[in-house]
Amino acid sequence: MLNTPAYAAAEPGLPLAPYAIQRREPRNGEVLIDILYCGVCHSDIHQARDEWGRGIFPMVPGHEIVGRVAQLGEGVDRFKVGDAVGVGCFVDSCRHCEQCQAGEEQYCREGMTATYNAHERDGRTPTYGGYSTRITVHQDYMLRVPAAIPLDRAAPLLCAGITTYSPLRHFGLKPGDALAVVGLGGLGHMAVKFGAAMGARVTVLSTSENKRADAMALGAHDFVVTRERAALKPLSRSFDFIIDTVSAAHDYNAYLSMLKVDGTMVLVGIPDQPVPVAAGVLVSGRRRLAGSAIGGIRETQEMLDFCAEHGIASDIELIDVAQINEAYERMIRGDVHYRFVIDTASLGAAG
Amino acid sequence: MLNTPAYAAAEPGLPLAPYAIQRREPRNGEVLIDILYCGVCHSDIHQARDEWGRGIFPMVPGHEIVGRVAQLGEGVDRFKVGDAVGVGCFVDSCRHCEQCQAGEEQYCREGMTATYNAHERDGRTPTYGGYSTRITVHQDYMLRVPAAIPLDRAAPLLCAGITTYSPLRHFGLKPGDALAVVGLGGLGHMAVKFGAAMGARVTVLSTSENKRADAMALGAHDFVVTRERAALKPLSRSFDFIIDTVSAAHDYNAYLSMLKVDGTMVLVGIPDQPVPVAAGVLVSGRRRLAGSAIGGIRETQEMLDFCAEHGIASDIELIDVAQINEAYERMIRGDVHYRFVIDTASLGAAG
Repeated sequence: MLNTPAYAAAEPGLPLAPYAIQRREPRNGEVLIDILYCGVCHSDIHQARDEWGRGIFPMVPGHEIVGRVAQLGEGVDRFKVGDAVGVGCFVDSCRHCEQCQAGEEQYCREGMTATYNAHERDGRTPTYGGYSTRITVHQDYMLRVPAAIPLDRAAPLLCAGITTYSPLRHFGLKPGDALAVVGLGGLGHMAVKFGAAMGARVTVLSTSENKRADAMALGAHDFVVTRERAALKPLSRSFDFIIDTVSAAHDYNAYLSMLKVDGTMVLVGIPDQPVPVAAGVLVSGRRRLAGSAIGGIRETQEMLDFCAEHGIASDIELIDVAQINEAYERMIRGDVHYRFVIDTASLGAAG
Repeated sequence: MLNTPAYAAAEPGLPLAPYAIQRREPRNGEVLIDILYCGVCHSDIHQARDEWGRGIFPMVPGHEIVGRVAQLGEGVDRFKVGDAVGVGCFVDSCRHCEQCQAGEEQYCREGMTATYNAHERDGRTPTYGGYSTRITVHQDYMLRVPAAIPLDRAAPLLCAGITTYSPLRHFGLKPGDALAVVGLGGLGHMAVKFGAAMGARVTVLSTSENKRADAMALGAHDFVVTRERAALKPLSRSFDFIIDTVSAAHDYNAYLSMLKVDGTMVLVGIPDQPVPVAAGVLVSGRRRLAGSAIGGIRETQEMLDFCAEHGIASDIELIDVAQINEAYERMIRGDVHYRFVIDTASLGAAG
């Protein structure tokens, strides 16, 4: 086993602190990765604080992992030492259900194996995430990071990127479509970039006027402050597609009524409580309210290649791991542009 | 003008009673229809009692109209005297918006002209429905009733039929799909027939064990009583498609969780109040919650032709118009198999 520096929440709610974990030597088909960067997802906070319950502690968060291949297990044929690679929200799945066969491992019937805060398929070995200096992963659950994408800015693509790219593709955003992005955070800023690159006319709907300049710089064509009710009226029946990235409770119906006939609103944020939906708003315009969760390995690779082709990467603030607890507080205040990424060099060398 | 016997609610909440209306001689492109049968839709009750507000009184309900062509206006080229014809939920629309151009007049941007409880495009002439002996309608808003369908049993196809046929087609029900029908009333019994005819495996989800035999006779393959929570558990992730015909408030999330990955649940009933939807149930299976309203003229004709081809018609109880107030009470109790249809011969001859 390989003694590996990491940062962990020892118990729910405790600040994250240095912690040593063991990574295994790569087995058949597995790859040992030296982690260079790890993005900080809002779900890291929820889980480190056990806000979703059933957390496995000590917990090493992090599922936006970028690094380089350090060592190959037997039978690895898709990567070589030194390759720039990524690991996202899951590191395994059942591999035989309909969804796994279709390359949609995120919807695995038996449940995907999350990159952290889960157990491996053996049902007992805990998984530890990317707030660490290395990780051992099967090659089938790894991504190739194209050379055109700066590695630090690639990390958030593995969760924030694919979470927004996948539904725009799956639900058929077309060039010329009117796309609204609700919320301009880690997910929203990626949705704006993808939407614009796919040829949509992008409107950002935000509670804060402060974000206007940023939204336009990210590629949005319009910006509307949703606190101003009068500004919403002209938006009735005006969007082909809405992607709603907000996890706080909010009014879906106001947004649904902005959809054209046959329009689709996709939720990628999950409010704590169910949100009332007015059937009449759906019925009167044959509208659809859908949800979407990250993306499969195949589509995540497609997304990374799309980013390379279109010059897309996440906008980040690079931090040392020692700043992680402060970063969490800033994220809760919405004070980040648009994703913190840990430089794992700050974790020190492996022991 | 043609003095025409009808039944009307003189004021909100008053029982329906005999009332004489005027129908016009057919103008250019219009057809005078002798009404033979008119189905009784639950929405007739809501509107006659002004439960949706803004009702136009006196009100002659009825939007499931079947009859024969009695007289042609100039320029009518699609029908001849004696033809069996139908009129559904609308008799006009703007004719120029994107939806009207696409033959989806029910989603007309300016609003379709409802068959009753509306004003014609002139903004002042009230429309009167099918609880009467004749109606004058433009040929573009008329359906041809195929000879294979008994005329009385054809009437409810114009609303209950198309309301369930359209979403099954639009959202892509395929042969072999697992379809659940929630609620076995006027809409639900049609959904079962259509689903079975389209080659789906149909499960009826009902609150009442009493409906089991009927459901199976209508073509369902399975029947589950939803009050028995234990019976619902095995249904998790088992349907490709759910059509929810229930207008009373109920739990959407329990049904949504029965959808497979990428499954669609379509609402055709509209509860009074918004219903809480758990985003996580949508996100975790990329599920879709959609709504659908009746259907356009083109698709309604397609539905009628499909019925003729597959030997489908509504199951009805034929009544005299004098029984209408009692029929309303029975419908509120759910005591009808499965649609009341008024024999308009009981209205007497035109004056």
